[in-house]
Amino acid sequence: MVYIKPFNVEQWMDKYETKCTNNIAETCCDSVSLAELISLTSNSTTHSHSETPLILALSKKRLDYGHIRGSPTLLTNISTLYSTPSHHFPFSQILITPGAIAANFLVFYTLVNPSHHVICIHPTYQQLHTVPASLGASVSLWKLQRTETSWTADIDELKSLIVPGATKLLVLNNPNNPTGAILPLDVLMEIKVLAQKYDITVLSDEVYAPIFHSSPDPPPPSFLSLGYKNTIVTGSLSKAYSLAGIRIGWIASNNPDIIELLAQARDYNTISVSQLDDTVAAYALSPTVRRALVKRNIDLCERNLEILDTFIKKYPKHMNYVKPVSGTTAFVKFLNPRSGKVVDDVRFCESLIRDTGVLFVPGGHCFGVEEGEFKGYVRIGYACSTDSLRFGLMKVGAWIEGGGMDFV
Amino acid sequence: MVYIKPFNVEQWMDKYETKCTNNIAETCCDSVSLAELISLTSNSTTHSHSETPLILALSKKRLDYGHIRGSPTLLTNISTLYSTPSHHFPFSQILITPGAIAANFLVFYTLVNPSHHVICIHPTYQQLHTVPASLGASVSLWKLQRTETSWTADIDELKSLIVPGATKLLVLNNPNNPTGAILPLDVLMEIKVLAQKYDITVLSDEVYAPIFHSSPDPPPPSFLSLGYKNTIVTGSLSKAYSLAGIRIGWIASNNPDIIELLAQARDYNTISVSQLDDTVAAYALSPTVRRALVKRNIDLCERNLEILDTFIKKYPKHMNYVKPVSGTTAFVKFLNPRSGKVVDDVRFCESLIRDTGVLFVPGGHCFGVEEGEFKGYVRIGYACSTDSLRFGLMKVGAWIEGGGMDFV
Repeated sequence: MVYIKPFNVEQWMDKYETKCTNNIAETCCDSVSLAELISLTSNSTTHSHSETPLILALSKKRLDYGHIRGSPTLLTNISTLYSTPSHHFPFSQILITPGAIAANFLVFYTLVNPSHHVICIHPTYQQLHTVPASLGASVSLWKLQRTETSWTADIDELKSLIVPGATKLLVLNNPNNPTGAILPLDVLMEIKVLAQKYDITVLSDEVYAPIFHSSPDPPPPSFLSLGYKNTIVTGSLSKAYSLAGIRIGWIASNNPDIIELLAQARDYNTISVSQLDDTVAAYALSPTVRRALVKRNIDLCERNLEILDTFIKKYPKHMNYVKPVSGTTAFVKFLNPRSGKVVDDVRFCESLIRDTGVLFVPGGHCFGVEEGEFKGYVRIGYACSTDSLRFGLMKVGAWIEGGGMDFV
Repeated sequence: MVYIKPFNVEQWMDKYETKCTNNIAETCCDSVSLAELISLTSNSTTHSHSETPLILALSKKRLDYGHIRGSPTLLTNISTLYSTPSHHFPFSQILITPGAIAANFLVFYTLVNPSHHVICIHPTYQQLHTVPASLGASVSLWKLQRTETSWTADIDELKSLIVPGATKLLVLNNPNNPTGAILPLDVLMEIKVLAQKYDITVLSDEVYAPIFHSSPDPPPPSFLSLGYKNTIVTGSLSKAYSLAGIRIGWIASNNPDIIELLAQARDYNTISVSQLDDTVAAYALSPTVRRALVKRNIDLCERNLEILDTFIKKYPKHMNYVKPVSGTTAFVKFLNPRSGKVVDDVRFCESLIRDTGVLFVPGGHCFGVEEGEFKGYVRIGYACSTDSLRFGLMKVGAWIEGGGMDFV
């Protein structure tokens, strides 16, 4: 049997998320029901939710495989995410998948083999480096460096990792999970130049776009917009659009040949996606609903991040972080207030959930790949409901003040 | 880039299914909408479909990731498929996947590596042998033999294919796509003995169960019920339950360790399934609805197979087959009535769709792996609506009588 490393963050969530009272570990913007989604833009007093056009369409839709690559309406709505006034992104260069996780997996399954070298930004979602390794590739990690004000990617470091001829794929994650940092335009441009020079395909996981809420600079564009042909971008409805429960993600590429190759492999593990989900996704990404949903979620993140920031600044002896500028997560370093040393992040999170019911994700355990890497770090998902965050942090504050952290 | 063979049957369907007027190529029992599913068991005159408990539940369900391995209600309903009065199949030994295609894929991705030898029954759904090969395994095909009255699996042939120590996985498909044959209990028992002796895990794709409609003998049991520990069974809502548009499949195993290993790998490509689909699937597999749905579909297959059988017997110079006893497909050999030689199945199917709008699947192209194998064979999916089948076959009959087959 193949040795596949446990996916620590998924296993952590699976173990604890049904046991906690305040889930401040989730990476999705506070989820909605269909009724709530409909309420964002329609006047619900005119008819009950069950009689809206969306619900009636779901009820009457014939549940066959449907359009194999995704419905034209859904593809059209996704193509607008990557189109500009001067360039209409063709919807034939998009594939629908059951979530971004399936999108990324499909890219690796199709493009990576044991003779390949893959470079992956780090820290990031563990899938992005463990899956290519499970398929036999050698993987190097391009490590973000923490400074006073940012998590920064060093282009010289990337250059040093490239193995000419062997490096086939560079995996980015922008905005970044768990740090909430972004790769800005100038860095993306430098990456593009290197990718072109060494003929490296770029997979940019942009599942947290367009949750750009706190950067003074303009948000980075999608890597697709840089015009580099061998670019693959993935996204989904789960994080930025509050709809993790419908499993709709996508792959878009500037290279039609890559899309055809991925479609060919996709026949073997997907066929098509849920027709109910496709219908809901097309509705959620229609211009009016999408605008309302993104505004709701950027407002939510701005509001909640200020609550988190106030909390973190209140306890400078206990924690510190680089304030995120995008996405839904913060990577916070916790210190034992007596010794000043970083805490054991697993013991910290387990004590916290036991004593308070608040769920965080242990960062060293879930993101570290070397001994002691990110020890003491905790990932906080602050895009939950404002009430859940506020009450959860109040509990954590009381726990800290009661000496809860003194022994972890 | 990895070389993955095109999945011929999927690509054929993708190319033609939106262009035909009579789709007699589909393998699913005639699909239903949610409204039709609800009508099977509820009195729709009492309230509109949009106000039924199922639709209201869908509308109000919070669309987060939900239960990672599948909801308890869905798992419970699936466990009853494999339970007997004396043995309750534990629902902890079931994993939910987006369709049976994802279920099979997950098994291969998790359990197969380049040092392994895999044996797969043949002909069958191409995924079942192409995916293990794409992961580097060597694959041998255990070929069904056509006799006058059946497609038969020869146990001595299986014995000859086993490479002691290297053969790790045996893949079955029962009922069989495309032949509609079954592996009966005595053959399953012999397979079990061999699997035990050589420590081979058995993957039994039972996605067409329980569509047993025309066999004089009792239907074969699930391979799970034989009690062999290293058994994995896959199934879904797509074929027998008319709900391909909701992407719900499952993996069940007698070995909890296999389930944990698969769950660990599943974290990397699935997370969880659609919460809308999970809710619909739990409803469809609830005892009352399931009974009504299975009865509808077995009745449909019985009725339609008689129509097909009458058609085939009308043209003995043009076609012959072994009448299927289960599932939704028939594998029919077409002959040029002038030469008596088998037709070119691709040219035959392309001429047919061009001239009549009727879609069949070319069997040699989609199921043959050697030069000329299954040349002239066509897979007919007869579980479409009775009207579509009847009118489609009328068109084919008129075409044949007009000499349409004389030149293919």
